[in-house]
Amino acid sequence: MSNLPKIALEEHFIAPTDVRDGSTEMDPLRQASSIGVDGRFFAAVLDQLVDVGWERIARMGHAGIDVAILSLTSPGVQALRDPAEAVSIAGAVNDFLADVVAKFPDRFAGFATLPLQDPEAAAAELERCVNRLGFKGAMINGYTNRADDGASYLDEPQYLEFWDSVNDLGVPIYLHPRAPLADQQRIYQDHPQLVGAVWGFGVETATHALRLVFSGLFDRLPRLTVILGHLGEMLPYFSWRIQNCFEHNPFGGKLDRTITEYLSGNFYLTTSGAFHDQALLCAALTVGVDRLLFATDYPYESMEQAARWLEQASISENDRRKIAHGNARQLLGIKTSR
Amino acid sequence: MSNLPKIALEEHFIAPTDVRDGSTEMDPLRQASSIGVDGRFFAAVLDQLVDVGWERIARMGHAGIDVAILSLTSPGVQALRDPAEAVSIAGAVNDFLADVVAKFPDRFAGFATLPLQDPEAAAAELERCVNRLGFKGAMINGYTNRADDGASYLDEPQYLEFWDSVNDLGVPIYLHPRAPLADQQRIYQDHPQLVGAVWGFGVETATHALRLVFSGLFDRLPRLTVILGHLGEMLPYFSWRIQNCFEHNPFGGKLDRTITEYLSGNFYLTTSGAFHDQALLCAALTVGVDRLLFATDYPYESMEQAARWLEQASISENDRRKIAHGNARQLLGIKTSR
Amino acid sequence: MSNLPKIALEEHFIAPTDVRDGSTEMDPLRQASSIGVDGRFFAAVLDQLVDVGWERIARMGHAGIDVAILSLTSPGVQALRDPAEAVSIAGAVNDFLADVVAKFPDRFAGFATLPLQDPEAAAAELERCVNRLGFKGAMINGYTNRADDGASYLDEPQYLEFWDSVNDLGVPIYLHPRAPLADQQRIYQDHPQLVGAVWGFGVETATHALRLVFSGLFDRLPRLTVILGHLGEMLPYFSWRIQNCFEHNPFGGKLDRTITEYLSGNFYLTTSGAFHDQALLCAALTVGVDRLLFATDYPYESMEQAARWLEQASISENDRRKIAHGNARQLLGIKTSR
Amino acid sequence: MSNLPKIALEEHFIAPTDVRDGSTEMDPLRQASSIGVDGRFFAAVLDQLVDVGWERIARMGHAGIDVAILSLTSPGVQALRDPAEAVSIAGAVNDFLADVVAKFPDRFAGFATLPLQDPEAAAAELERCVNRLGFKGAMINGYTNRADDGASYLDEPQYLEFWDSVNDLGVPIYLHPRAPLADQQRIYQDHPQLVGAVWGFGVETATHALRLVFSGLFDRLPRLTVILGHLGEMLPYFSWRIQNCFEHNPFGGKLDRTITEYLSGNFYLTTSGAFHDQALLCAALTVGVDRLLFATDYPYESMEQAARWLEQASISENDRRKIAHGNARQLLGIKTSR
Ligand SMILES: [Zn+2]
Ligand SMILES: [Zn+2]
Ligand SMILES: [Zn+2]
Ligand SMILES: [Zn+2]
Repeated sequence: MSNLPKIALEEHFIAPTDVRDGSTEMDPLRQASSIGVDGRFFAAVLDQLVDVGWERIARMGHAGIDVAILSLTSPGVQALRDPAEAVSIAGAVNDFLADVVAKFPDRFAGFATLPLQDPEAAAAELERCVNRLGFKGAMINGYTNRADDGASYLDEPQYLEFWDSVNDLGVPIYLHPRAPLADQQRIYQDHPQLVGAVWGFGVETATHALRLVFSGLFDRLPRLTVILGHLGEMLPYFSWRIQNCFEHNPFGGKLDRTITEYLSGNFYLTTSGAFHDQALLCAALTVGVDRLLFATDYPYESMEQAARWLEQASISENDRRKIAHGNARQLLGIKTSR
Repeated sequence: MSNLPKIALEEHFIAPTDVRDGSTEMDPLRQASSIGVDGRFFAAVLDQLVDVGWERIARMGHAGIDVAILSLTSPGVQALRDPAEAVSIAGAVNDFLADVVAKFPDRFAGFATLPLQDPEAAAAELERCVNRLGFKGAMINGYTNRADDGASYLDEPQYLEFWDSVNDLGVPIYLHPRAPLADQQRIYQDHPQLVGAVWGFGVETATHALRLVFSGLFDRLPRLTVILGHLGEMLPYFSWRIQNCFEHNPFGGKLDRTITEYLSGNFYLTTSGAFHDQALLCAALTVGVDRLLFATDYPYESMEQAARWLEQASISENDRRKIAHGNARQLLGIKTSR
Repeated sequence: MSNLPKIALEEHFIAPTDVRDGSTEMDPLRQASSIGVDGRFFAAVLDQLVDVGWERIARMGHAGIDVAILSLTSPGVQALRDPAEAVSIAGAVNDFLADVVAKFPDRFAGFATLPLQDPEAAAAELERCVNRLGFKGAMINGYTNRADDGASYLDEPQYLEFWDSVNDLGVPIYLHPRAPLADQQRIYQDHPQLVGAVWGFGVETATHALRLVFSGLFDRLPRLTVILGHLGEMLPYFSWRIQNCFEHNPFGGKLDRTITEYLSGNFYLTTSGAFHDQALLCAALTVGVDRLLFATDYPYESMEQAARWLEQASISENDRRKIAHGNARQLLGIKTSR
Repeated sequence: MSNLPKIALEEHFIAPTDVRDGSTEMDPLRQASSIGVDGRFFAAVLDQLVDVGWERIARMGHAGIDVAILSLTSPGVQALRDPAEAVSIAGAVNDFLADVVAKFPDRFAGFATLPLQDPEAAAAELERCVNRLGFKGAMINGYTNRADDGASYLDEPQYLEFWDSVNDLGVPIYLHPRAPLADQQRIYQDHPQLVGAVWGFGVETATHALRLVFSGLFDRLPRLTVILGHLGEMLPYFSWRIQNCFEHNPFGGKLDRTITEYLSGNFYLTTSGAFHDQALLCAALTVGVDRLLFATDYPYESMEQAARWLEQASISENDRRKIAHGNARQLLGIKTSR
């Protein structure tokens, strides 16, 4: 185990069938096949998603990861069309996760699964997860499907009170990728590799995050915190241009601060699946190292590769410690035993 | 005039109505309003798009731009549904541009407008523009509309021979943004500011470029050159992740080289509308300074801001000269008088 | 005044003759001429060194500098050969500075002048300056001259107890340049421009700092804090090589930590006279932004240039604020009114 | 062997005793002990210095180094006091090196050893080495000792014609470190580790290079090329400050260009012994990647460490190839078989 303590924030599991109630809409395999994931790769991933015990702990040890904040794998309950089902499954998943964490309280922590199909229930469930189950926040996998075949983005008016609750609880929401809407994949036609993690996930999630910003959410709730994976899903690279073009063409819109100010004031960015010095440097110089957090995106990515990369990335030791554990300790109130 | 000679590659004009034949589909105003461009901003832009004479030359002088490669503003003929009309207008626009260049041969050069609705005609027109009119390549504004309401991306099979012609001519194609397809803008609903230059343009164009790469185009024609604006439309930042995820999930696809190798071997990236040291640094460290070119995106952006930024960006003087004019001289065979 | 509050740490003054007792050894003009400073330049500097009132405050306002930590200009009392004289003048200078600070308590703070010729007296004077006069630490201008024509570096054994006192007081020592010893300037022969700020100052001070490190001072007193100007006088750039070569050839020496760990754990680096993004980036990536502090080196450098540079340096806003005032607030317990 | 071809420029050997004539002044062991080199380390180094055959070739193969430009280890003939002896030994060393290169013409090339004690003879020997022996330039180990116990720096007037010859031949001079003059080591007293590669070498060599610049040598011979090792011996980091302070205090001096312009126009910097991304980044952003060359400083450093570092440094593949071999091919006219 390296001597760099690490807290990892995008570490996925899958709830056992009896917990998730046989529903297939939220089956990651379904999203996986719909976006062209290689079957053999996904089978291995599935094995590792199921494991929330000693094997995962062993891998964490090998990678020098002290604490993993676990979250249900994408698309999770966001994929369900029936609100009642979403509420019920989210509760079951969170209970399951609470049990998992209880078994390894020093090594695991939890991000709640939220049934955004029913905003009020989602707020209540978050409150329960944080105050009663000790979770550190929640992970939301992008837009939420609706019974009418539509989808809801988190900046829509029905979520205003949900965000108020989040704000009151003072916990972060991790906005995690899912595939673009099925009828919005024309540009990926004949290129299934591009829909998911390769590219489409990033575009979908970055755009969703921009919706939040441009909706004025962070002007209304200036202390709200959203976490983005994959070094901010390209937003740091384009932040200057976004701001510049918005100033040219506000189209009547108005924001209190600049895009970069939102990015470095309301967002944290994790390293999940983006183990690239050049992008890290761009992110650090855009939002500052204090807003970067370690994450692996296990089991879609390798814990060990993630860890080895951070341990030797071309940054200062002080910054390495902040990214590895310092910022997470402060943000989430997590302790590590070393 | 600064003493840094500059060749600018994304410098737009609009053809006068008598040239473009009264068609409104290609009217940039139409795209502009459809994507929420501020009317007052666009009126000023239009005045400057029309000007291909002394006023533009004067602005170039003020910004220390020696040569501007002019190109018809987006979406150009790509927006037309009727192939015959596209062919006819493209020819007229190119003739008009040839006249403009002939008046200021030391200060202007041209990128052809191509009627991709008719791939064979597009190849012929490119050949005419390069060999007879002396143009330096072509600018294509993303996908091309079709009479059947569909759209064609440049990696589709009907363009294989077109690309062969491009390859034979040895000139670069500038892949320029246009707005996402009208029925693919669900994610921008209620956020018109996001559709265009702020964000959607970049996503659309980067995805289009990835289609080219993943289609195997550059494996078939390894010396083909495509130019992207806006510091590569986010691709440098995500190149590592694209490659990494594609290796996890190739979905049967196979490429001869890595994404970064295509980016730094088949693409050039311009600075148009992305005057940001942090992104420049990321791009330079990802594709190398030899693949970066100066551009302003005038009149959507300010020539002077673009120039002043490059003159003081935190890079070496040698690299500054390469970006400002050295690489363009080599790529396009352009001379500057200083 | 810009809206970036700034605390500046290397801001020099000269004590009036009646305070410094007519001694000429510590006359900066003497060092200045000995190292080839241009007379006209120095005359202007002298006027500004003398000013510790409204004119300086006005310049600070123009540059957006809220608080300046004032320090006697180099070589200060370090140049005196007579210990008693050094003790007496240091006391008078510090009293003078205390008066200056008292007049503008919101805008000025002080770094003590210390008579290192008498280590015990230096410790006592530091204690008086910190506890009674409210100074924030001390500035020492390199080696100290001796009555026997020799010179003393701060890692020599006679300073062990002095450093204990510094450590007990918990204040930082700013190790500031002075010219290399007169009989050690052979390599500068015929190149007077190189002896001082251009180059020799940096070499002298960096080497002095390395003496401190290699003497084991920071192993004995791990919480001791030394400040270096000029972005660390080249040490960040060479830190890897220093460590690497020392590991090859320790010559019996042994250190508890790596050079970079000392640099980022026991040192703070200021921006004085080094307004260069490329060096800032190297420093930030080597020691981390938390160890960087704003300083101008006024009046040898321009407050305004220093300020304008930091305001637009290619770093994140969060990091800009840390360098400008955040880190200094934390290190020195200084407040700014905005 | 990695698939990154490499040409290495600071690769040292020691001439056998019968060639170097029993002289001990140039014995690297003498410099080594005088500056505190660990005996065991030096014994291993000596074995590797002697080897100019298959073992070295094997190590080069392991590190993926195609061509090594060999040079006599420091201080070489620069340490001799007797000009006639220097001339005679330099000739013998160069003949020896020519034989070595002749045995492995695809893997070795040579930098001449020059008897600067006799400038005219040095020029003649360089001419012989380049035109008859096929050497690629020369390596000079800093100042040259003199019979009168003094030392000569290369900017002194007696070398003007020597530099004219260098300029006419169009080959580069590699300015390599040696220890500071014996009577100029006061600041290193009690800190023997600091005198040599850890620090003193860099200071000595950087200062020597600045003497060349400030002497106006490159104004007189604007196409002259000097190579510095160790990523430019700190000069890139301080180049802005050097220029800035020189403008404040020119002391009557005048230069045609800025320091950075000399650094990026008349110097090449090698990576020898400085395998540090942060410094590489600073150097690249200051002088441009086209002025950087690969070197290892073998056997004082490890070929393999040097190679592995460059292969994974956080730069673009295009730039990696330039540093590894592209720039050297162009500068020295060297070919590699892959
Ligand atoms: Zn994930
Ligand atoms: Zn454009
Ligand atoms: Zn100073
Ligand atoms: Zn060497």
